[in-house]
Amino acid sequence: MPKQVDHRERREAIARALWRVVEQRGVTHLTVREVAREAGMSHGQLQHYFASRQAMLSFAMDFASEQTTHRVARTLQPFGDRPHPREVLRAMLTETLPLHADARATSRMSAAYVLEALHDEHVHARARDGLVQGRALVEQLIRGAIAGGFIRPDRDPVTETNLLLALTGFTTLLELNVIAPQDVLTAVDQYLDRLFENDQSA
Amino acid sequence: MPKQVDHRERREAIARALWRVVEQRGVTHLTVREVAREAGMSHGQLQHYFASRQAMLSFAMDFASEQTTHRVARTLQPFGDRPHPREVLRAMLTETLPLHADARATSRMSAAYVLEALHDEHVHARARDGLVQGRALVEQLIRGAIAGGFIRPDRDPVTETNLLLALTGFTTLLELNVIAPQDVLTAVDQYLDRLFENDQSA
Repeated sequence: MPKQVDHRERREAIARALWRVVEQRGVTHLTVREVAREAGMSHGQLQHYFASRQAMLSFAMDFASEQTTHRVARTLQPFGDRPHPREVLRAMLTETLPLHADARATSRMSAAYVLEALHDEHVHARARDGLVQGRALVEQLIRGAIAGGFIRPDRDPVTETNLLLALTGFTTLLELNVIAPQDVLTAVDQYLDRLFENDQSA
Repeated sequence: MPKQVDHRERREAIARALWRVVEQRGVTHLTVREVAREAGMSHGQLQHYFASRQAMLSFAMDFASEQTTHRVARTLQPFGDRPHPREVLRAMLTETLPLHADARATSRMSAAYVLEALHDEHVHARARDGLVQGRALVEQLIRGAIAGGFIRPDRDPVTETNLLLALTGFTTLLELNVIAPQDVLTAVDQYLDRLFENDQSA
């Protein structure tokens, strides 16, 4: 196996070990030592792949975002080359919510990263960049859907983007079993129905 | 000062010290020792008021909820004895979001409590109970607003309640400066305008 590929694979394996630590034991156990143990390597071996706890956490977070992007792409596959903007927004939102095991792992990872960001400027900047990029992508989709006649032209794209992003608040309600997964999907669909009430493409 | 009052006041002072630890240093520093230091007492003195870290955390969380309830009541004071349901829901939502220092402290406290809940059954049950009660209150308000003709009768009260609660997702977007406070308020008002589009009372 080429050395670069092996290096990347080992880093991904460490990132998955980190997710497991966060998911199963919580953010307070998120130390290099715990992650090394979970990954089945020594502290020294892990340091060969990540020079610091922060570098490890940043990589795990980027890898979580990539995995979410892959899940969204898989969800959209049946809709062909030009999926309806409603399906794209629905997939982006539902794959961010902890509605199944993979999404739960990346969601808990994100929650831990956000709490860490409140007390670490570097993590704050990186977490913010990721969300700002995600927000820009959603706004671009909404502007396109307004231009394409899918969403009423009097809707403000900035406000609609912000409201859609805020619906990630279902995360806590799902994690604490306050709202059942099926009721979350019902609410998301109701919300999207209203956003796309102008849709003439159906 | 009567002994009971003093006891309660000391517990509240400890709860505030706990919030400061969470807000300034993060959930990973949330130990009895750190809170005792912040409260200016010994570990042993603190244990006189709270037998365990968990008891301390639960009290701090209940106290945070009480403080939020007080802030909501203060916000609604100018609206008299029977505030409009839109104003009530707006106050409940905006006082839950980290839009000013007091709300930020209780919001970070809640975020820490939720992460703790994922790995502690007792905390999970208590956090869930609090949210289920809050959810029931919002649903009662929405059902009343539908009955009173403020909200269209074809709106489903369960789904509308779930969507309103999900908007607490603005918390992360505010904490990471992805959306400015003014844009959050614009989005909340836009959302409530649409929810109350049937309102004949104005």
